[in-house]
Parts: sequence; C-alpha cells; structure tokens
Amino acid sequence: MGYKLASRKEKKDDTVITVGNSSVGGKQLAIIAGPCAVEDRDLFIEAAVKLKKTGVQMLRGGAFKPRTSPYAFQGLAEEGLKILAEAKRITGLPVVTEVMDTRDVELVAGYADVIQIGSRNMQNFVLLKEVGRGDRPVLLKRGLAATIEEWLMAAEYIMAEGNNQIILCERGIRTFETHTRNTLDISAIPAVKHLSHLPIIVDPSHAAGKWGMVAPLAKAAVAAGADGLIIEVHPCPGEALSDGGQSLNMVNFSLLMSQLRPVAEAVGRNCFDEAKNLVRQNII
Amino acid sequence: MGYKLASRKEKKDDTVITVGNSSVGGKQLAIIAGPCAVEDRDLFIEAAVKLKKTGVQMLRGGAFKPRTSPYAFQGLAEEGLKILAEAKRITGLPVVTEVMDTRDVELVAGYADVIQIGSRNMQNFVLLKEVGRGDRPVLLKRGLAATIEEWLMAAEYIMAEGNNQIILCERGIRTFETHTRNTLDISAIPAVKHLSHLPIIVDPSHAAGKWGMVAPLAKAAVAAGADGLIIEVHPCPGEALSDGGQSLNMVNFSLLMSQLRPVAEAVGRNCFDEAKNLVRQNII
Amino acid sequence: MGYKLASRKEKKDDTVITVGNSSVGGKQLAIIAGPCAVEDRDLFIEAAVKLKKTGVQMLRGGAFKPRTSPYAFQGLAEEGLKILAEAKRITGLPVVTEVMDTRDVELVAGYADVIQIGSRNMQNFVLLKEVGRGDRPVLLKRGLAATIEEWLMAAEYIMAEGNNQIILCERGIRTFETHTRNTLDISAIPAVKHLSHLPIIVDPSHAAGKWGMVAPLAKAAVAAGADGLIIEVHPCPGEALSDGGQSLNMVNFSLLMSQLRPVAEAVGRNCFDEAKNLVRQNII
Amino acid sequence: MGYKLASRKEKKDDTVITVGNSSVGGKQLAIIAGPCAVEDRDLFIEAAVKLKKTGVQMLRGGAFKPRTSPYAFQGLAEEGLKILAEAKRITGLPVVTEVMDTRDVELVAGYADVIQIGSRNMQNFVLLKEVGRGDRPVLLKRGLAATIEEWLMAAEYIMAEGNNQIILCERGIRTFETHTRNTLDISAIPAVKHLSHLPIIVDPSHAAGKWGMVAPLAKAAVAAGADGLIIEVHPCPGEALSDGGQSLNMVNFSLLMSQLRPVAEAVGRNCFDEAKNLVRQNII
Repeated sequence: MGYKLASRKEKKDDTVITVGNSSVGGKQLAIIAGPCAVEDRDLFIEAAVKLKKTGVQMLRGGAFKPRTSPYAFQGLAEEGLKILAEAKRITGLPVVTEVMDTRDVELVAGYADVIQIGSRNMQNFVLLKEVGRGDRPVLLKRGLAATIEEWLMAAEYIMAEGNNQIILCERGIRTFETHTRNTLDISAIPAVKHLSHLPIIVDPSHAAGKWGMVAPLAKAAVAAGADGLIIEVHPCPGEALSDGGQSLNMVNFSLLMSQLRPVAEAVGRNCFDEAKNLVRQNII
Repeated sequence: MGYKLASRKEKKDDTVITVGNSSVGGKQLAIIAGPCAVEDRDLFIEAAVKLKKTGVQMLRGGAFKPRTSPYAFQGLAEEGLKILAEAKRITGLPVVTEVMDTRDVELVAGYADVIQIGSRNMQNFVLLKEVGRGDRPVLLKRGLAATIEEWLMAAEYIMAEGNNQIILCERGIRTFETHTRNTLDISAIPAVKHLSHLPIIVDPSHAAGKWGMVAPLAKAAVAAGADGLIIEVHPCPGEALSDGGQSLNMVNFSLLMSQLRPVAEAVGRNCFDEAKNLVRQNII
Repeated sequence: MGYKLASRKEKKDDTVITVGNSSVGGKQLAIIAGPCAVEDRDLFIEAAVKLKKTGVQMLRGGAFKPRTSPYAFQGLAEEGLKILAEAKRITGLPVVTEVMDTRDVELVAGYADVIQIGSRNMQNFVLLKEVGRGDRPVLLKRGLAATIEEWLMAAEYIMAEGNNQIILCERGIRTFETHTRNTLDISAIPAVKHLSHLPIIVDPSHAAGKWGMVAPLAKAAVAAGADGLIIEVHPCPGEALSDGGQSLNMVNFSLLMSQLRPVAEAVGRNCFDEAKNLVRQNII
Repeated sequence: MGYKLASRKEKKDDTVITVGNSSVGGKQLAIIAGPCAVEDRDLFIEAAVKLKKTGVQMLRGGAFKPRTSPYAFQGLAEEGLKILAEAKRITGLPVVTEVMDTRDVELVAGYADVIQIGSRNMQNFVLLKEVGRGDRPVLLKRGLAATIEEWLMAAEYIMAEGNNQIILCERGIRTFETHTRNTLDISAIPAVKHLSHLPIIVDPSHAAGKWGMVAPLAKAAVAAGADGLIIEVHPCPGEALSDGGQSLNMVNFSLLMSQLRPVAEAVGRNCFDEAKNLVRQNII
C-alpha cells in the first residue's frame, strides 16, 4: 500500500503550484522568508516591507508555535493571523503559516495562502486529512526522522482527500551529529524529484540551527535542484522570542539573495527580479 | 526552560498510578496486552477473556489507528471503543486505547481507563494539552526519534495543564539498524528512573517488529527496572489487519508470562498471580 | 556474498569457546572485568586479586588504547602486556586485551588469552585477517555504527582465515540520543542468537558511559540471553586515566555480581560460584 | 584535549595542498575521478586518458579495497599500484589511492601522490600515525558515523606526527534513511571551513550510492563551498567489480564536468580548463 497520487509514475509532469502572483515548482525559484514567529505587529510589518523589496515571493510567520517546552512562547494565535493578513494587504505578498489543531484549520485557511504542516505533525494523520479536505495549498515539512517514503505517504494522505496542492519541505533530519541542529538531507531533493511530481523546497535555517550556515546551505539546495527556499529572517535576531540564533538579519539576507541569483542561473532557473538592483542601490 | 513537574528533583517519590484494581509504578509489575487494533467484536472479546486468565492487568486495543498509509485499515472508531467497553464489562480489566484528534478526547475518555498518545503524536502539543485538561491517566509513548529530554518535556505539557497521571512508554527509537523495526532503547529505563518520578513501561512488540524477539526484550525490560510491559497479542496473528508479524499468539504469550515471573522476582518485583497456575493447569 | 561460516545455517549448535578454566557460550555466564587501561603495575595487580574474589572468569585491561585525541593517554604498550601476564600468573585468570596494529598481533598473542578487536577497528579488514591466521580466541566488538550484518561479516573475515574462536561483543551503537554515550542495542542479543552460532557478550560500561547505569543494563543483557558481560571496574574510578566516569568501583561491582545471580538463574543460566559468599562474608 | 594543529584558531589562512601541477584548497576547484578499483590494466589506462581530456586534476583507483565481505574482490595490491603509476606516466595526472595496513604505507607512498585513508579506517590510529610520519598528502575520509569533531581529531593524529598535508573528504554519514547508501552531510562543508584551515572535498558517489544522484550532489557540494570532488567514473559501470551502481559512465561524467563550471563560477571559483571545449567538440 504505497503512495500513488504523489508518485511520478501516476503523473509525469512536475506539479506547479500557483500562489498569488508567484508559483512553486516551475522555472522560477520561490523564496519564502520571514521571522520564525509573529511576535509584534510593528516589527512584523516592518520586516514584511523590507522583505518585499529584496524580491521574496512569500512571507512566513508562525501564529501557532510548536515549542518543545510548554513554558516557551506559544505564538499569538488569531491575533498573529490578523497581523499576517495585514502584512499581506500592505505588501501584496501571499503568507504561509502553520496549523497544529484540526479545530483551527478553517480559521487558519481564512487568513493563510499556504497552510504549513510542521515536522512534529507530519504523521498527525487527522490533521493531514483535515487540510486535505480544504482548498489551500499545503507546505508539508518532513518529519524529524521521517523516511522519504513516509513523507510522500503523508502527502498521499492529503491528496487522498482531494487536495493536490502540496509543497514538500526538507528541513533536516535527526542524526548523531551535534554540530548542527539537524542534518540537511540534500539528497532528498533529487530523490523526491525522481519519485514524485510534487515540488520540493528547503529550509536551511531549521536544518543548520546556526545563521552562519544558512547561506552555503541555501546555495547548495538551489544547485541540487530545489524549487525554492524558506528562510528565517528577523529584523533583530538577538531579540527574537523563538529561534533567533538561526535567523538572518536583513543585511545578510539581502546579501544572500544577491548570491543566489548566479547559482540559480547556473542550474537553469529564473530568479526573483528586484533583489540585485536593491542591493546595488543600497536601498536596504 | 526545562521540565519541572516531571522532574525527580520536584518530587522525590515514585509516582504510582492506580487504574481499576491495579497500579503502575509500584512494586507490582503491570502487564498490558491485546491486539494492535480492535478489528472484530467476537475476536476481541475472546482474546480479552483469555488474556484475563493469563494474569494481565489491563487490555489494549486501538480504535483509532495511526497508519503510515492512508489506504491501510484505519480502525473502527467509536464502534471499536464500544467493543473495548464490552470487553471491560466482561473481564473487569481496565482498557487502554489511543486518541489522535483533539476533537475525540472527550469521546475516548468516556470509554477508556487510560488514554494513549502514540509515538507520532508525542509532540502534538495541542493534543497533549487536551488530555492534560482531562482526568484520565495518559500512556505517553516516546516519539520515533525523540530524545529522553523531549519526551519528559511532552509529559510536562500534560502536567502543566493539571493531569499528573502519566505512564511513559519506551517503544524503540529510529536508528540505522534495519534488522529490527526500531531499536529498543533499554537505557531509557534507568535514565527515566533517574530523571523523573513518573513510571515507565516498555513496548517490546513495536520495538522489535518481530514476535520472536518479544520475549527476550520483555525480560530485559523487566530486569532493567521497567514498571510494566505493553505487549501485542492476537488470537491469530497471521490474520491481523495491523502489525500481525510482531504479535504473539496466546500460547507464546502465556509462556512468556510464566517466564517473566522469575525475572521480576529476581529484581524484587511482585508479579501477577494467576498466570503460573493457569499454565500448570493447561487451561490455555 | 553474505556470511557463511558465522551463520546458524552453517552450524546449528552454539559455539562454546574455552578460555583457561572457563568458557563463553555455554550454560555458565562469563564475566570479564577490569580497568579500561593498564595504568600502573601495583594498581592493576591489586584490582585483579580483588576481582578474582568476586568470581569473575577473566580480566580485561588495555595496553594499546585507541583514544579519540592524540594527546590522551595511549597505553603502556608491551609494559602493559607484561603487567597483564603477571596478573594472570597471580590470579590464574585468563586475560583479554586489545590489538590495534597488524604488526603487534604476534606480540599481543604472546601475552593474551583472548585478543580484542575494538569498535573502531571492526572493519579494519587487514587486522581481522591477521588475527584470523592466529589461534587465539578473538573478542570482536561491534563497530560504532555497524549493522548486525556487517558485524557478522567482520567475524566471517576472521573465520575465513581459519580461526573460529570468536566472541561477539555488543557495546552500544551511535544514535541521536545524547543522554547516554551510546545506545545499547539490546535487540542485538536475540538477533545474533538467531542468525549465528557464535557467543555474544555485552559491554554495558561503554554503552552507557555512566557507571550508574551499568547495573540495570548488565541485568537486562543477562535477561535477554547474553552469554556474558565485560565490565569496567577500577579501584579508584576518579583517578582513572581513561573512562573513569563509566567504571564501577569494587564495592558497586561486587554488589552487581550478587544481583546478577538471581537474574541469571531466572533465565536458566549457571552463575559464578564465589561472589555470593564473599559478599556475605564481607571480604570485599 | 581537543584538536589544535587542525584548528582555524591555530592557523587563520586556508591550507592549500599542491599535488603535481594542481592544488586543493585554493581558488581552483579540484576534481579527482576514476573507477572505484583498479581492475584491469587496459581498462584503467583507457579511462585515465579519457578522464585527462575532461579536465580532471587527479586520478583515483583502489589497489587495496576495504570490502564488507571477505568473499568480494579485494583489489590487485601492488599490481594495481603499478597500473596507477603507468596511468600517471601516460597522462601526467597525479594519483590517489588507499592504504589499509601500516605495513603497506611505504609501498603505497612509493607509487601514490596522495594517500587515502578510507572511512572504515578513520579511527585506525596506528595507520594515521604511520601516514603522519611520511611526506605524502593524505586524503582523510570521514568515518561512517564520525562526528566532525572526531574527524578533525583524526586529522590531528596525522598532523601531530609532522604531516600537515591533509585533504578532508565528506562521503556521507550513516542515518536511518535507506533511500540513499549514506546521507551526504552537506553542512559539514561550512562547518569544517569554520572550524579548520584544512581543505575539504566531497565524494558524492559513495554518499548517494546511485549514479543518478551524483550530478545534483556534486553541484550542491560546489555551491556549498567544497574545494573539490572525488567522483567514481567507470568506462563500463555495469561490469565494474566494485560499486558499479554508483559510477558515472564517461558521457555522464563529461556532461557533469560541463555543468559544474557555471556553478563553480557562481560561487567565485575557477574551474578546470578543458572540459567545456571537449564537450563542444564531441571528443568524448
């Protein structure tokens, strides 16, 4: 009883998912960026406006946060969703945000352009079915220690309910190595491209857990054929309530955007339009 | 922001959880047994009656099943819960069953004596909070690749909501070794005993994934200090809809029960009363 | 091209390896103990005499030490071998020690009753062949991240050269869990018993990396069917030049010996003769 | 007792290792290619000549082969070394080959320009010391499950004996994922660049274990900042005695060489000179 709908055998052509004015899975590289959590209205709007200028296609930000400790910041819930919606109105950029509870799927779908299923919920099968019954594209993160086959089977759960709009996201797997937070499984990119027609993007921030490693991993992901990236950027990483140590600041993110362009072109991808000019003009 | 309520520092004495006439965490070894899934009323009642005679303290059986594939048997849902309740009425044994959806917690609590949180939901934080608000003891399985610290932090999520009745369950972790389904982390027993006051039991069936290994692993777990075992037993493993290959049949389970007694006594545990006699009398 | 000579299919009966007056693989449980490294003549002789009284069957001690850092104590080399030989003369107990270099095999075989191949050399194929050409029994430790199949294949390398006297030793594998130094793969015991006729012992000291966990893991190993144990014991663990934190002192080791007897008997094993009496008589 | 000589703190500038007319660690990307094993004189010479035309800087080929099974092809030993020497004379390209036995270090150094220490011998400390006493550059592969720290400590063993010419080689680590032979730890590249001044190259062939994945992983490695690549190429992969399934044939390797150039340039690297022209001219 393997996956069928998610299989390349079932559908030969790459699935391209359209979100607002951009798309994931086509020739254009998709860059999604934003702070780990939505923490504060003004801070988030400011970040969104700056990110827009760098050329990103989508904004990310968590309103419901899955934290290892019950005593850590758990997110702003619906208030966070409203801030996301405001950022979308102002920038015109679609927003990606996580849902954790079957009871919240409808609420989140009312605000988000793409619904994220986090690593810890990759095999939360009731949640997969619930987002499968909706019409929002789903960003499905690979589980902490999920095999590629289990990951595609999780996609199958969503597709079996009728929703074919799935973006897979490799975010590092758990291994014995402790130098990085997780081990980015770069091989998952060609593996998924071979086994499935679904697009795959990479989250170098959670994989590395260290902002200094984000740029080389992002470039590696693009060179290996990833359809996009989701990157944590925070206007002031040192003050972030969640995952500050792995967030790029605006200057480093903008620099990375300019470095990604030639790599993307080297592997035959089109790239965002605005970043290069902005860096030249010293706008950010 | 580590765990507090789950810590041995916070509470020096072992927590003993009373369920019906039996308990988990005291001198008595607790044995929970039953088929992986509740598949059929007559089959389950027959198994329950036989298991009662072997001296087990509790019955297990899944009504909601977390299956890797959406095309695999997903459980009988409320119908399965009703069969569990009937088995309880007939045998007098408390029942353990899994909940997967926050929306089902109240329903499941209406039938189950102990609510199970499965491995794939160990970091389903909204589900942890929901069972934390109830008054049913919770059997919290360790995640596929969860550290001991993350596991205790998951227990903390439940305790932070007010429910202190938690039974931890080691069920094997994911490693590179493929000979077994998972690698039973036997060291987790002394580790948890050192770090926490909560009781810990072991699931050798899911750890090994092969019924032929269940007996040696069960004995090892008891020798290492586990407070109990949860074992898959099926009247006819070859016909099981789920996990048949790792289920013991009645004869082998009964044999294991008789072998566990001397091991339990060797490490200062009291053991179930009836099994030895039954085996002698050839009742099962 | 799998293993043949090491396979249970090739030889149905358990292999029993005789070393001096004791044996490994038969009904009798074999206990090997001693400090990690031979550091000092007087200290080692004193430890050997005390260990003899607890009922151990063999002494262990490293003369050539594989250390992660080139700046850590590397062992006393031939001087260490001579101390081992003296301890053997005084106590009558056979000695186990490691060889790391093909050029030293003959030298080590001149002093040792059992030659140890360490974890880091489990796939040092030229060393395996060299000890395979000799007539000394070989204690073959499982590699840090070796599969059971690779481990049996390493045994096959030795056997293919003519030496069938192999004792397999499970010592923990590398996983994501950091609470223990390694993860003791307790399932390897029934797995090896099923796949091979070779005896298997367990090293709980290196598996746990913490002396406080050695006793529960040792009992678990015996309950799971291990043919013996190899345990680090140091007269003064706090002063050990190598692995002090995982060494038992004499009192705790003696206590463990008395606790192992009932567990061994519970699974049908005969046990060492002297320990129980000595503890009763307060000799050590 | 950490590493010192291998540390970036000890030496700020990148170490550049000169081998023949090429170098590893500078601006130029170093490509090493060849069959897994030297199997046949004519086949190897033919491959060497073709590889020279693609623009590679060095040839690889094993004369002593570490094989999991004692019944698998073990290499041609000195005969293989002589073939390597002939290939070097004909092509002018330096050769890299593995040594497994301390007794063979002098012999191998008589033929090889770079001596390889394989993954299984990364913690064969006596072998590390032996090559450390010589003057040949050492290609030090990361162990199957070695941490980055242990790997740098292995380099320290070589350096502590006086040999500073070390090329680190990431070749995939062992994880739970079975889709690939190993999991290429792409993060090791920026990690090593941060921690050490030593050059690091990547072996995508052993990491993936599937030739179809070699090209994307090779491009990813270059984009992440690797100083070079070591790639298995076989004139006729289907007939290889060792690792045929992961070897590229000449056409695919030549294609990869042409694809690597723009990626290398995108991250500021100079690239081999000849490949692009040859592909254009349809010479191979």
